[in-house]
Amino acid sequence: MKAAQKAQDKNSNIYKLRHSLAHIMAQAVLEIRPNAKLGFGPPVDNGFYYDFDFGEESISSSDFKDIEKRMKKIVKQKQTFEASQKSLEEAIKFLEETNQNYKIEFAKELVENGKAENGQLDFYTNGPFTDMCEGFHLEDTGKVPKASFKLDKIAGSYWRGDEKRPTLTRIYGLAFESVEELKDYVKRRELAKQRDHRKLGAELDLFVLDEEVGVGLPLWLPNGTIIRDELEKWAHEIEFKAGYQRVSTPCITRSNLYFRSGHLPYYTEGMFPPMTIDDHDEYYLRPMNCPHHHKLYAARPRSYRDLPIRLSEYGDVFRYEKHGSLAGILRVRAMSMNDAHIYCERDQVKEEFTEVMKMYRFYYDHLRLGNFRVRLSLHDKDSEKFVDSEEQWQESENIVREVLKENNIDFDEEVGEAAFYGPKVDIQLSNVMGREETVSTCQLDFLMPDRFDLVYTDSNGESKRPFILHRAPLSTHERMIAFLIELYGGAFPTWLSPVQTLIIPVNDTVHEYAKQIEQRLFDNMVRVELDLGGETFNKKIRRGITRKIPNIWIIGNSEMDEQAITWRRYCVKDQVKIGLDKACDNLINWRDKRVMDNFEDVKISE
Amino acid sequence: MKAAQKAQDKNSNIYKLRHSLAHIMAQAVLEIRPNAKLGFGPPVDNGFYYDFDFGEESISSSDFKDIEKRMKKIVKQKQTFEASQKSLEEAIKFLEETNQNYKIEFAKELVENGKAENGQLDFYTNGPFTDMCEGFHLEDTGKVPKASFKLDKIAGSYWRGDEKRPTLTRIYGLAFESVEELKDYVKRRELAKQRDHRKLGAELDLFVLDEEVGVGLPLWLPNGTIIRDELEKWAHEIEFKAGYQRVSTPCITRSNLYFRSGHLPYYTEGMFPPMTIDDHDEYYLRPMNCPHHHKLYAARPRSYRDLPIRLSEYGDVFRYEKHGSLAGILRVRAMSMNDAHIYCERDQVKEEFTEVMKMYRFYYDHLRLGNFRVRLSLHDKDSEKFVDSEEQWQESENIVREVLKENNIDFDEEVGEAAFYGPKVDIQLSNVMGREETVSTCQLDFLMPDRFDLVYTDSNGESKRPFILHRAPLSTHERMIAFLIELYGGAFPTWLSPVQTLIIPVNDTVHEYAKQIEQRLFDNMVRVELDLGGETFNKKIRRGITRKIPNIWIIGNSEMDEQAITWRRYCVKDQVKIGLDKACDNLINWRDKRVMDNFEDVKISE
Repeated sequence: MKAAQKAQDKNSNIYKLRHSLAHIMAQAVLEIRPNAKLGFGPPVDNGFYYDFDFGEESISSSDFKDIEKRMKKIVKQKQTFEASQKSLEEAIKFLEETNQNYKIEFAKELVENGKAENGQLDFYTNGPFTDMCEGFHLEDTGKVPKASFKLDKIAGSYWRGDEKRPTLTRIYGLAFESVEELKDYVKRRELAKQRDHRKLGAELDLFVLDEEVGVGLPLWLPNGTIIRDELEKWAHEIEFKAGYQRVSTPCITRSNLYFRSGHLPYYTEGMFPPMTIDDHDEYYLRPMNCPHHHKLYAARPRSYRDLPIRLSEYGDVFRYEKHGSLAGILRVRAMSMNDAHIYCERDQVKEEFTEVMKMYRFYYDHLRLGNFRVRLSLHDKDSEKFVDSEEQWQESENIVREVLKENNIDFDEEVGEAAFYGPKVDIQLSNVMGREETVSTCQLDFLMPDRFDLVYTDSNGESKRPFILHRAPLSTHERMIAFLIELYGGAFPTWLSPVQTLIIPVNDTVHEYAKQIEQRLFDNMVRVELDLGGETFNKKIRRGITRKIPNIWIIGNSEMDEQAITWRRYCVKDQVKIGLDKACDNLINWRDKRVMDNFEDVKISE
Repeated sequence: MKAAQKAQDKNSNIYKLRHSLAHIMAQAVLEIRPNAKLGFGPPVDNGFYYDFDFGEESISSSDFKDIEKRMKKIVKQKQTFEASQKSLEEAIKFLEETNQNYKIEFAKELVENGKAENGQLDFYTNGPFTDMCEGFHLEDTGKVPKASFKLDKIAGSYWRGDEKRPTLTRIYGLAFESVEELKDYVKRRELAKQRDHRKLGAELDLFVLDEEVGVGLPLWLPNGTIIRDELEKWAHEIEFKAGYQRVSTPCITRSNLYFRSGHLPYYTEGMFPPMTIDDHDEYYLRPMNCPHHHKLYAARPRSYRDLPIRLSEYGDVFRYEKHGSLAGILRVRAMSMNDAHIYCERDQVKEEFTEVMKMYRFYYDHLRLGNFRVRLSLHDKDSEKFVDSEEQWQESENIVREVLKENNIDFDEEVGEAAFYGPKVDIQLSNVMGREETVSTCQLDFLMPDRFDLVYTDSNGESKRPFILHRAPLSTHERMIAFLIELYGGAFPTWLSPVQTLIIPVNDTVHEYAKQIEQRLFDNMVRVELDLGGETFNKKIRRGITRKIPNIWIIGNSEMDEQAITWRRYCVKDQVKIGLDKACDNLINWRDKRVMDNFEDVKISE
């Protein structure tokens, strides 16, 4: 069970802990604001909250210390949570005495709706504090682990969440089963805030989102385009070596192609609406590249000698995501996908699938995207979402399962998550906050060859249907780069960095030498900047660090005299003085070998 | 005046020659088909035709020799063309006697419509042949230069071009003012047929057009994609060295962006219709990249220190061209453009424009695209197609004119051909048939900075508008590659070739050695093929030539013993045996330096 699910289980210790802390906080708040009226106070992900109506009074985060101190005292007192029951009449009388009118409204409603068993309402008391509540608490307040909670923030809310009802003040607390978990969460949240790809994307000039251009349509600034281009160049090389052939296809097409593929009508909701031209022809922005690639396969006669045919394209696709579900570049409406389709014979499927899984592994390992799990997504034979062909489903699911097992890949199986045309392996990546997304998939397709009438001539001269693998290991540029920005905190390795080297001269007398170095690197297609501005040396260094440039080369007189540079790496304390030739060799070598120098302790070799 | 215009000038010798030949052909045809009825017989581009109604009889190209012989005889007889006039009554009488009912219909119409001066109809007589005709002939048939004409083909036509009227037989003739011109035309036409980019595109597996995908939407096969990728990689390098920054922007956008730019409503006809999403938002496929780049310029504050800013993108654009005007990949609806926008200060405009013109020259020279003319396209102050700002027009036109002059570039000026926002330089390329197309343009834009409120801070801290240059020297992939295919006849240089080297072993004993060579080239990212098939050596060579592969490496036993290869170049007779190391060095060097070995006598150096 995932942590978030577990926290919703009322019998779990973490639920009881957070629920008890809500009571304890309310009790402490009432000590300093005795006139406060209580709203609701449930446990939530990562902690709990309670809503208060402070009337003419107010509260602020400067009161947190005091409240927390009182809460700790209550914990120390090991007050037991005692259950009791009251009839509606008794409950109203008690709540009137304690001035809790919101609770009175709720008590009446519970009884009216028959949610109070035998007309009796549940109350829980710990020490001097009694709250109407359905229960699930710790045995006593002393069971709250030491330092496992912390008040977090204040927010406005409405009674019953209704903006026409009174405004309340919500106090949030964080709570975990141990102090380590709390600390870890706080640290991760702080990191996530610093590393938010939207924040870093703006600070590092990677991309912009512009409402006039459209919703969910990022515009990539030069720095972001460099990262896209480098990833694409890499994929180009890796795919060349793996026997792929690149193709290029238009991102619009006639509706009939999608009726053939089944995207219409099954995927209509995820597509942009059609454009009608030439009187009656409907054209769509494509949501996927597959139909175009199938068309290219079908454009020539194919023999078993030609197979496998691996057609790849960083293809632009468009998906109509609801406005509310868009998020930075993680979830957008226009994206470029590291797509390919492999057409092969039945007895080549396993080897091809294996090679694709190895390629995934290679990319993920190289990029240090370690935090993923592999999911085998299967069909659900009781659902109409999947093609009705049980035998083919069994066969293809078995193939994929075997491939995963033979490659010693750990995986979970999930029924009902397949594509409508076949099973798939999903790579589920978790971001710094533990939130999981499907980043890449590899699919085995036994349906489209039929729909597109794809054939090849086998060694006996007979016409046969190929199998198809759909794969996109590097995901879309948009999603992959969102993950990389957050994983690296914006500090990219040299090969991906918008600026690979910043040259900072210590004084005017070395400007000429610095310019020579700049020219030398530039001639070698290194993305280099030379800072000849009028600011102080320290300010220049600081700005280089703020921009997370991986390499700063410092040029002073001794460097000039020795035909050397002093190399300062991002976030590395020790600087190294090294001969210019060696420095250039090192840098170009890192770039060409795509060294992950943001993770590795890279040796600057003499 | 262009040749095509001149040929339409009725007073020109070429018009009179072709018109006279139409009469001469009709006369000759009537000699062998005396019952034939005449339709119209005008001069056309490259020659003339005459329409005949042969009734129950027929004619075929096997009769051409006979007709041509008779025409030559008529030429020899130096028959003078004598004018005469007839009233409608006389004309009808004469035409009835000669059984020319089509001409009678036309004679009546001319008189009815008042097109016969004083009711008199013009007739021309040479020798025994008289035709109703408005004139413009040579003095006599003897003025037809020897061997300057040739019957060409037979086609069906309709009387008055109306498919409800009788079917006629049209005989086409070619005619020029000299035998050399005729021969040259025939040769060029044959070449054009062989080099037609649609024919070669199919034969060399470069691209396909598929009606199910859509009209005017090419799908690029792996071979064609290689050429696109190589051109793009080249542009990437050249632009990096010239200080450009690549960006990446979506190919759709909200309508409001185009209302701002003026594309809506001024360019609506050239655009695809909108897609409406999110209840009310209209999104368009973009016809141009400019507005997106302006948005990226505006996304950050800009200082004079940052200028010029050169944003480049091989951007996908979509234009709604009428079905009938589409042609292969030369004129399509979806294209990728070698676009860039340069934002600069007023006093940087000239230098930037000069650098762009130099870049054009570099690309065109390198690709051997010599057959172009430069056109300076100016505004027309009397037309509403252009922004009303005479002073700015004068200033910017003068800047561009000066740049052209200072760079010693020959150019023609054409009023009314500017963009609506500024003057432009158009590079007009002629294909093998002499048909001219605008392939690349460079524009100076003084309007969009206002419309997009683009600014920079100048050295005095004041806010100023930049100037913009729009440029696309390598045109679109579609148009450029169409031209290159025809110019090279499909025989691309090594660096652009889909297969760069084909290895052919002479016998089985050298297979291992051949495989080693293949692996070595492949490891160096050379696009290499090894032919281990069962066919004869000669057939393998022939197939390599048919595929226009620039380099064939032949491997026999002596090559293996000497660690060498025998190098056979496409269309080069002499083969060279050379050490393997040297051969690899040569090949990789040509590739990396983008040597145009399809034009140059490349030395294979020991």
